[in-house]
Amino acid sequence: MIALGWAAGQGKRGAVVFGIAIHGGAGTLPRTEISAERERQYRLGLAEALDGGRSILEQGGKSLDAVMHAVAALEDNPLFNAGRGAVFTYDGRNELDAAIMDGTNLRAGSVCGVCHVKNPVELARAVMEHSDYVMLNGTGAEDFALSRGFALVPRSYFHTDERWRQLQRIRSGDIEPSALTISHVGTVGAVALDRHGTLAAATSTGGMTGKRFNRIGDSPVIGAGTYADNRCCAVSATGHGEIFIRAAVAHEICARVRCGGQSLAAAVHEVVHVELPGLRGEGGVIAIDRHGHIAMEFNSEGMFRAAVSAGGETQVAIYR
Amino acid sequence: MIALGWAAGQGKRGAVVFGIAIHGGAGTLPRTEISAERERQYRLGLAEALDGGRSILEQGGKSLDAVMHAVAALEDNPLFNAGRGAVFTYDGRNELDAAIMDGTNLRAGSVCGVCHVKNPVELARAVMEHSDYVMLNGTGAEDFALSRGFALVPRSYFHTDERWRQLQRIRSGDIEPSALTISHVGTVGAVALDRHGTLAAATSTGGMTGKRFNRIGDSPVIGAGTYADNRCCAVSATGHGEIFIRAAVAHEICARVRCGGQSLAAAVHEVVHVELPGLRGEGGVIAIDRHGHIAMEFNSEGMFRAAVSAGGETQVAIYR
Repeated sequence: MIALGWAAGQGKRGAVVFGIAIHGGAGTLPRTEISAERERQYRLGLAEALDGGRSILEQGGKSLDAVMHAVAALEDNPLFNAGRGAVFTYDGRNELDAAIMDGTNLRAGSVCGVCHVKNPVELARAVMEHSDYVMLNGTGAEDFALSRGFALVPRSYFHTDERWRQLQRIRSGDIEPSALTISHVGTVGAVALDRHGTLAAATSTGGMTGKRFNRIGDSPVIGAGTYADNRCCAVSATGHGEIFIRAAVAHEICARVRCGGQSLAAAVHEVVHVELPGLRGEGGVIAIDRHGHIAMEFNSEGMFRAAVSAGGETQVAIYR
Repeated sequence: MIALGWAAGQGKRGAVVFGIAIHGGAGTLPRTEISAERERQYRLGLAEALDGGRSILEQGGKSLDAVMHAVAALEDNPLFNAGRGAVFTYDGRNELDAAIMDGTNLRAGSVCGVCHVKNPVELARAVMEHSDYVMLNGTGAEDFALSRGFALVPRSYFHTDERWRQLQRIRSGDIEPSALTISHVGTVGAVALDRHGTLAAATSTGGMTGKRFNRIGDSPVIGAGTYADNRCCAVSATGHGEIFIRAAVAHEICARVRCGGQSLAAAVHEVVHVELPGLRGEGGVIAIDRHGHIAMEFNSEGMFRAAVSAGGETQVAIYR
């Protein structure tokens, strides 16, 4: 199922193509957990994050700025599992992962296991632009943040009572990890094409509730949760991270478009509905190609998502 | 250039196909740094590591066991930058990364930034086989190691005077990172096909001398330095890790074979001699496909490497 599938190039008045899509996580999504008021808040959060990115693209700004701002907005929103509102590890900490990638020259930056950085996506960008590295981790990543003038925040910044209660339910054995809903495992991400023809992708997450052993998921793994290549497309994923790493989901979609000659829609469809289910991998992806085609697909009950293209209307959706 | 390119299937007496290739790093390799005696030691270390893997395959053992034992042997050899003999970080620590992958079902395990694990490749395998995770990091990975009965070793186990002197030369500004030779940035790895038709890959490293900020390189990143998929091939990479992550080298080669219809030789050649130089990425890869074809290519001065197939002779090489 292609939840939203249109070409940005089809925008009104022949405007120069641009487009942006965002997600706020995918997974099991019992309607009983999502009241009408809460659904309204989710939709509002998505629309606001998307709007910030769209505004940058509309004014001729860079896709890199658009995805970073959209993801930072979702990080700041405690409804989503990234930045403020991140889930807790088994030990009661918030360990944040994020990545960003510029399709121009395959430049990328990524951080994992940071505990004091308000907007991990901004730190990932600093790694990309101001270090010799791609992937930094834990306290080392925070040392780098300080060296770049980032103000660290106390751990308490990330504490939300709802996430804390979710951890207690898991620690008490009240719920099985297999019964985890979208709110326990979510991720946020964005992909964009700007008027200069440049693609970018960014992803950020708190990982899975109750994760142990400094687990790293797919979000900060370039090629798994995040990839962008101007020759083909930009992808941000959300779901059962371990499976997404094993299938190298984001790079797989890019490779199918670039080497396999598949359309973006076909590549995304096959990976989400054939490859991932074959590994029992639940989740979804958002992607945009160099022509501005957008694909947003998931094999779970729902995926928080939104997209807009040049001249088009904003689309916000949660369920199928 | 395909340094070693033959099909394991071409072995004598029509024996069932198997094959294994290993590497001990690639990079600038000034002949002045490598005395005849030292070269002999490198060749001996490679031959012994390969022989252990070959022996497992010959007796009908699993490719997963073969690559793990070959990599563990190289980790135990202080000549190579992995396990004992790992390079030092800027802060004077040894932070080890490793990954392993089973082509059967894309199962994978990976650890990064561990400081007290004698054979990180064995811990990566334990992550794959005995945890719900793929990628564990730092002290969390060591907690997991203890929970699995691994005996941790003191930091002093990894100390070698030669590596320590290399760090001092970098810290004093005596040499530029760009002048780093293979001995400062090496990696070890192995790929194998067993008689059951199963592919596996493993990679292990101490990273780059003088690395900072808990930098993670390509070795433990599934899809970058390590990948195995029975539908196509198994790959282990060595080189400038940041570039290898950005190009998703190991998965890129697999995707070219599986989706792009390229031969293993063509896929490896294009990635090593076209894609990587385009990003100024120096290094090489070893790969084996499901038919037993082996490719070992590099765009640097040299790559420590060795390979053997069913019924064939062991090949060991360093320079082009």
